Amino acid sequence: MTPSAENSSLAVSVAVIGLGSMGLGMARSMKRAGLDVVGYDITPAAVDRFAAEGGRGAATPADAAKDADIVVSVVVNGEQTETVLFGPQGAADTMKPGAVFISSATMDPAIARDLAGRTEALGLHYLDAPISGGAAKAALGELTIMASGSGRAFDTARPALDAMAGKVYELGEAAGTGAAFKMINQLLAGVHIAAACEAISFAAKQGLDLDKVYQVITASAGNSWMFENRVPHVLAGDYTPLSSIEIFVKDLGIVQDMARSERYPAPLAAAALQMYLAAAGAGMGRDDDSSLARLYAQLSGAQLPGSAKEPQSR
Amino acid sequence: MTPSAENSSLAVSVAVIGLGSMGLGMARSMKRAGLDVVGYDITPAAVDRFAAEGGRGAATPADAAKDADIVVSVVVNGEQTETVLFGPQGAADTMKPGAVFISSATMDPAIARDLAGRTEALGLHYLDAPISGGAAKAALGELTIMASGSGRAFDTARPALDAMAGKVYELGEAAGTGAAFKMINQLLAGVHIAAACEAISFAAKQGLDLDKVYQVITASAGNSWMFENRVPHVLAGDYTPLSSIEIFVKDLGIVQDMARSERYPAPLAAAALQMYLAAAGAGMGRDDDSSLARLYAQLSGAQLPGSAKEPQSR
Repeated sequence: MTPSAENSSLAVSVAVIGLGSMGLGMARSMKRAGLDVVGYDITPAAVDRFAAEGGRGAATPADAAKDADIVVSVVVNGEQTETVLFGPQGAADTMKPGAVFISSATMDPAIARDLAGRTEALGLHYLDAPISGGAAKAALGELTIMASGSGRAFDTARPALDAMAGKVYELGEAAGTGAAFKMINQLLAGVHIAAACEAISFAAKQGLDLDKVYQVITASAGNSWMFENRVPHVLAGDYTPLSSIEIFVKDLGIVQDMARSERYPAPLAAAALQMYLAAAGAGMGRDDDSSLARLYAQLSGAQLPGSAKEPQSR
Repeated sequence: MTPSAENSSLAVSVAVIGLGSMGLGMARSMKRAGLDVVGYDITPAAVDRFAAEGGRGAATPADAAKDADIVVSVVVNGEQTETVLFGPQGAADTMKPGAVFISSATMDPAIARDLAGRTEALGLHYLDAPISGGAAKAALGELTIMASGSGRAFDTARPALDAMAGKVYELGEAAGTGAAFKMINQLLAGVHIAAACEAISFAAKQGLDLDKVYQVITASAGNSWMFENRVPHVLAGDYTPLSSIEIFVKDLGIVQDMARSERYPAPLAAAALQMYLAAAGAGMGRDDDSSLARLYAQLSGAQLPGSAKEPQSR
């Protein structure tokens, strides 16, 4: 599994920290692009899975990062990112001067600014680079990345960005800007999923033909990317998690924390968060985020496709 | 102005009740298509305007409707529609047996069912046919119409529908279905405008480049038809009313009334309605519905384009 000395001296070397559905796809995309990729995950089985397909595994973030030109962190939130960098056996302990840390977790921009400052103080580069697109796009190397950082950070990160992304938005020099753009997107995404579920279950409550509602709304001014994408899950009665309720408990929670600290009222995001919390509390936290439609149905007696077989989730 | 007897015996005869920006455009589209159109409005100046361009005016709904094969009602709500039909000098007094009443106002489906029942009891047809698309599409004869009614109602209405609409959704026989589809669309549209304004002003509060936010979001999962259409008004600082705050005070009010009577919780629509009420209370009721962004800015100190010159509206 160890690459030859010759190979590693030629190829750009990348460490991927976090080999879940997103990180594994990103690691594979970079390997496919000819980069020298080493992977780490807190769960040994995830490292084994990567190793089984010919990937190189590491035992700690520090171990993974020690010869890397680029460290790509694909964890869930700001806290985990801080642990990856500065926790015991953290990547910052071993990264080479001039290497870049690409942070892809969704987080409060203030945390991104803090992590960037501490990383740069060590002579390292930091790219604030949240991702969007889901596991399928990760596997294809077609993610959308909303990135901010110094020119040097972008230059050093470029081979990884090219391999992982279909589109990279370069949003300026300041860390936190990438994170802030992602949070604006998540505010809208979270509200739109809740609105889609509120509307389609309201249509069900009135006994409307839901396939026809989908056809009319997707061609009308009431459409959203999320309505178009998520309502088919409801129409199929299939709540297999492509993205979970808990993701929006987290992300709209960050929006609320940011808004509170900035004295910004965000009543739509607040109302949506309450519905995700209710869905999680009712036992659907790990189900698809379109499960909000089931919640509305439970609360109103609306009949959704497949809902007769669903109450097991309570 | 009176057409020759020969002409009126050949052409389908249509009465348009309500010659505002929507009704006038619809009347013009039908004239252009060769229909024999007579117009009425409660405001005499609106009738004069139609007459000045060669239209035929009437003094009351009953007068307009008396020789019509088709009566198109283009008023604001269910109450006004009831007055047009059954008020003093109402259209139902004079409509010919077998003529059709096309109701285009946005209203509670229960009201649409009531009006349809009373109209059909007189030997007339009723088409529950809310419209979408705005004044520009009305003028071009390219509205979207969400219609329900009997086969006879559709058949009789066809020449008018063909002249007014780019797309007619035929949603079944039952009156109220067209209205219900329109309310589902309005729930989503109203929530999405509020979400767009909450998000773009939140981006402004954080000092983000708003043109870049527009570019990124319209290409991302956070996009909606309304975000794409309304945020440019905010970026231009132009709140000239294309559709007003008061429209959504009305339409989300209907959604709330329906939801309350059906015991359906609709917290997203409820939160959005509060913001439209606040904008109307703050003096922006007749301004463009994207004025919600100015409200968020006033409540948070966010700086929007052109906002320095806007506080006159308070």
